[in-house]
Amino acid sequence: MTNQTLTHFDSTGRAHMVDVGHKAETARVARAAGSIFMQPATLALIRSGSAKKGDVIGIARIAAIQASKRTGELIPLCHPIALTRVAADFVIDEAQNAVHCEVTAECFGKTGVEMEALTALSVGLLTIYDMAKAVDRGMRIDNIRLLEKSGGKSGHWLAE
Amino acid sequence: MTNQTLTHFDSTGRAHMVDVGHKAETARVARAAGSIFMQPATLALIRSGSAKKGDVIGIARIAAIQASKRTGELIPLCHPIALTRVAADFVIDEAQNAVHCEVTAECFGKTGVEMEALTALSVGLLTIYDMAKAVDRGMRIDNIRLLEKSGGKSGHWLAE
Amino acid sequence: MTNQTLTHFDSTGRAHMVDVGHKAETARVARAAGSIFMQPATLALIRSGSAKKGDVIGIARIAAIQASKRTGELIPLCHPIALTRVAADFVIDEAQNAVHCEVTAECFGKTGVEMEALTALSVGLLTIYDMAKAVDRGMRIDNIRLLEKSGGKSGHWLAE
Amino acid sequence: MTNQTLTHFDSTGRAHMVDVGHKAETARVARAAGSIFMQPATLALIRSGSAKKGDVIGIARIAAIQASKRTGELIPLCHPIALTRVAADFVIDEAQNAVHCEVTAECFGKTGVEMEALTALSVGLLTIYDMAKAVDRGMRIDNIRLLEKSGGKSGHWLAE
Amino acid sequence: MTNQTLTHFDSTGRAHMVDVGHKAETARVARAAGSIFMQPATLALIRSGSAKKGDVIGIARIAAIQASKRTGELIPLCHPIALTRVAADFVIDEAQNAVHCEVTAECFGKTGVEMEALTALSVGLLTIYDMAKAVDRGMRIDNIRLLEKSGGKSGHWLAE
Amino acid sequence: MTNQTLTHFDSTGRAHMVDVGHKAETARVARAAGSIFMQPATLALIRSGSAKKGDVIGIARIAAIQASKRTGELIPLCHPIALTRVAADFVIDEAQNAVHCEVTAECFGKTGVEMEALTALSVGLLTIYDMAKAVDRGMRIDNIRLLEKSGGKSGHWLAE
Repeated sequence: MTNQTLTHFDSTGRAHMVDVGHKAETARVARAAGSIFMQPATLALIRSGSAKKGDVIGIARIAAIQASKRTGELIPLCHPIALTRVAADFVIDEAQNAVHCEVTAECFGKTGVEMEALTALSVGLLTIYDMAKAVDRGMRIDNIRLLEKSGGKSGHWLAE
Repeated sequence: MTNQTLTHFDSTGRAHMVDVGHKAETARVARAAGSIFMQPATLALIRSGSAKKGDVIGIARIAAIQASKRTGELIPLCHPIALTRVAADFVIDEAQNAVHCEVTAECFGKTGVEMEALTALSVGLLTIYDMAKAVDRGMRIDNIRLLEKSGGKSGHWLAE
Repeated sequence: MTNQTLTHFDSTGRAHMVDVGHKAETARVARAAGSIFMQPATLALIRSGSAKKGDVIGIARIAAIQASKRTGELIPLCHPIALTRVAADFVIDEAQNAVHCEVTAECFGKTGVEMEALTALSVGLLTIYDMAKAVDRGMRIDNIRLLEKSGGKSGHWLAE
Repeated sequence: MTNQTLTHFDSTGRAHMVDVGHKAETARVARAAGSIFMQPATLALIRSGSAKKGDVIGIARIAAIQASKRTGELIPLCHPIALTRVAADFVIDEAQNAVHCEVTAECFGKTGVEMEALTALSVGLLTIYDMAKAVDRGMRIDNIRLLEKSGGKSGHWLAE
Repeated sequence: MTNQTLTHFDSTGRAHMVDVGHKAETARVARAAGSIFMQPATLALIRSGSAKKGDVIGIARIAAIQASKRTGELIPLCHPIALTRVAADFVIDEAQNAVHCEVTAECFGKTGVEMEALTALSVGLLTIYDMAKAVDRGMRIDNIRLLEKSGGKSGHWLAE
Repeated sequence: MTNQTLTHFDSTGRAHMVDVGHKAETARVARAAGSIFMQPATLALIRSGSAKKGDVIGIARIAAIQASKRTGELIPLCHPIALTRVAADFVIDEAQNAVHCEVTAECFGKTGVEMEALTALSVGLLTIYDMAKAVDRGMRIDNIRLLEKSGGKSGHWLAE
């Protein structure tokens, strides 16, 4: 990582939305994951809701997809991106008292979609927090990370 | 936690924005915290930037404050809230190769501001990820949690 | 209706956001309703989805609630309003091959929430159209109307 | 319509923003129509306003065009779209005591613009309701439907 | 102006949304003004349009009012505010080849509405630029300033 | 400028988002400039802040970049645009007691980016006003203008 610099700043240190006009348009994919940990009783409430009524996971999924489209408004130096696909999967993990979420975002464009995947993921988990907070304020959102990305000049990247 | 139910759903399991019209307006405060972990060289870049040029932390702070005002748009069942104060502190931790963030949100109103604090926090940390991702895609956002809240019928709550 | 004028325009015909600063804050409620009509097979798909998987109605409900919070952005002369409650009910009507929707919006404030209820309703029905349009482009949204409103100087109003 | 499924859900029933990355970019057009019915005296107010002062129709037209650009924020599973043209026509119909609206939306892209046309139309009609509601709360928005669409794999579609 | 500091920063220089929770709610008014200067032929086009067709001024007025409601999203450290009135007047000035605009914003709250008036004003003038730019790219927006404000602890202020 | 008309209106004077579907996609650049004038003591506060703490200029730069992405929401007849670069430079001018700002916006598309540059510029200057208004309400934003644009059928344009 020698001689690395932060590309969101020009040579005098001023933030800018970096020039991507010259970049090729390629198919781009990003996958991100994260989890929310909670009390066993809270997880039980969410799980029963998903099966019968009070669909916490279904609402979190919609919130995640919706948030992916607002990424450029939330993250100051992100470019606006025409997403071509967003999917959010949630897995209820009784062993760890957690809900795990994985989001995949795709576009065909000049910049990557890592932030779109991560923003969707974060808002999806926050939505679970919101719905269950009245019974469990101590929930913890953890381990938000990029799993994989492909496309663009930097090519394929896979988390170790 | 016996007989608990998720208040965002009515008795038939349908989601709604719960009625807070009858609640008293009180001073409400929420504090939330979280961290982003990274490579030592990435942290060094952020630290040097903050001192001289390329102010990653300053931009993340603005992104966090701005996001707090969009909470109701992002989290489906949140009420719109007239925030009266938002502050975001970031601490660079060389021992752990992390940036820690703490957000305080306040309002005088009928509902709490936990989600506003947590949303600001998440977007602040995502903004750091965005700015440093070109040099370190493996950064991890961790331990997002509520520290404390006060105001409203449920009163004071402090994380253990 | 003699001597009526449109209050969104001043005496010279210029549009404005009318002054409500002097109005009393009162509890305000509005109920609106509307329907979407479709092919029997389309309704069957929606109905089976709601029961088992592919929850069209659940997503339309979230879209409706979310839209109520954006009313002031969409309707040019609406005041921003701090909604205290929004609920959206959907009824599947096999006899008429329709989904009927009713939205209730509430606030405690200086202006009514009719537009919030009607905007939520419209976006909820449009969301159903979006999800089913690949199998039935000829669906029709009909009979969007206010059912009832209360609060404010004009008091209670009930549709005939 | 045998073997039809709702494409906004995957094989396990989970909602997603469907993958359009592989679709060809084609010229796409959608036309939608709808009406608002009212008291004769209300229509007279709107008509006189449009001619001289208090331009209800002009404001509704701007609201419709503005709303078309927010479609992806309002309809949860819509893709963001770069619209290339939006036009909204309103016709005052004294025989039926109605204002009829027709919206045309166009883009060159991977997905259709039906929802953009329908969303613009709905918000345009809601804006008329908003401006005239102080004199006529019983107005009714009716017959919102797609008239025609072209472009994309499904090709041309014309309402019967 | 001795010992003045910028209140949007805390004692260590960090930006925050300043605490207004303790402030009294008072009636607040702000008036702002500004102008756009252009070629005589451009002004003639705008003037004829306003009279007969192509209502540039009417559209700019709606854009100004709409923008006032987005102030908190645009100006990073502004508080969200429940505006109770916004009005925008435009005057065509043939002697100076200009359109002058004045915006008045009002609320009953804990913070002033100067930024709401100035933001509405700026967007109103930019909208005129947008509509006429195809015939006159050299237009100039000038003299954007606060004329007057009242309410709050700092009381009445009038531009000299 | 004979026979000029305002292209945002059709032949009957109705506003529309003009059809750009047939236009070629070209590289497009726009540069805009403007200034804010203030008391010498205000400028000194801003200048000291930028050097040490309370970074007014840094925050105004982020606000400008963020606003460029919202142009289509603010300016009614603007097309949504996928910006590929935005940069905002601020110069402190002690001789004139002013901060000068210049914004460059770029895209590769069917329409120009003049409004994106001008909107970013205006919001950047308004953000400076917001941060310093508590010590100097008499600041004046002046001379907002396009400096240069290139790309598209009308080609290169440079302010005299």
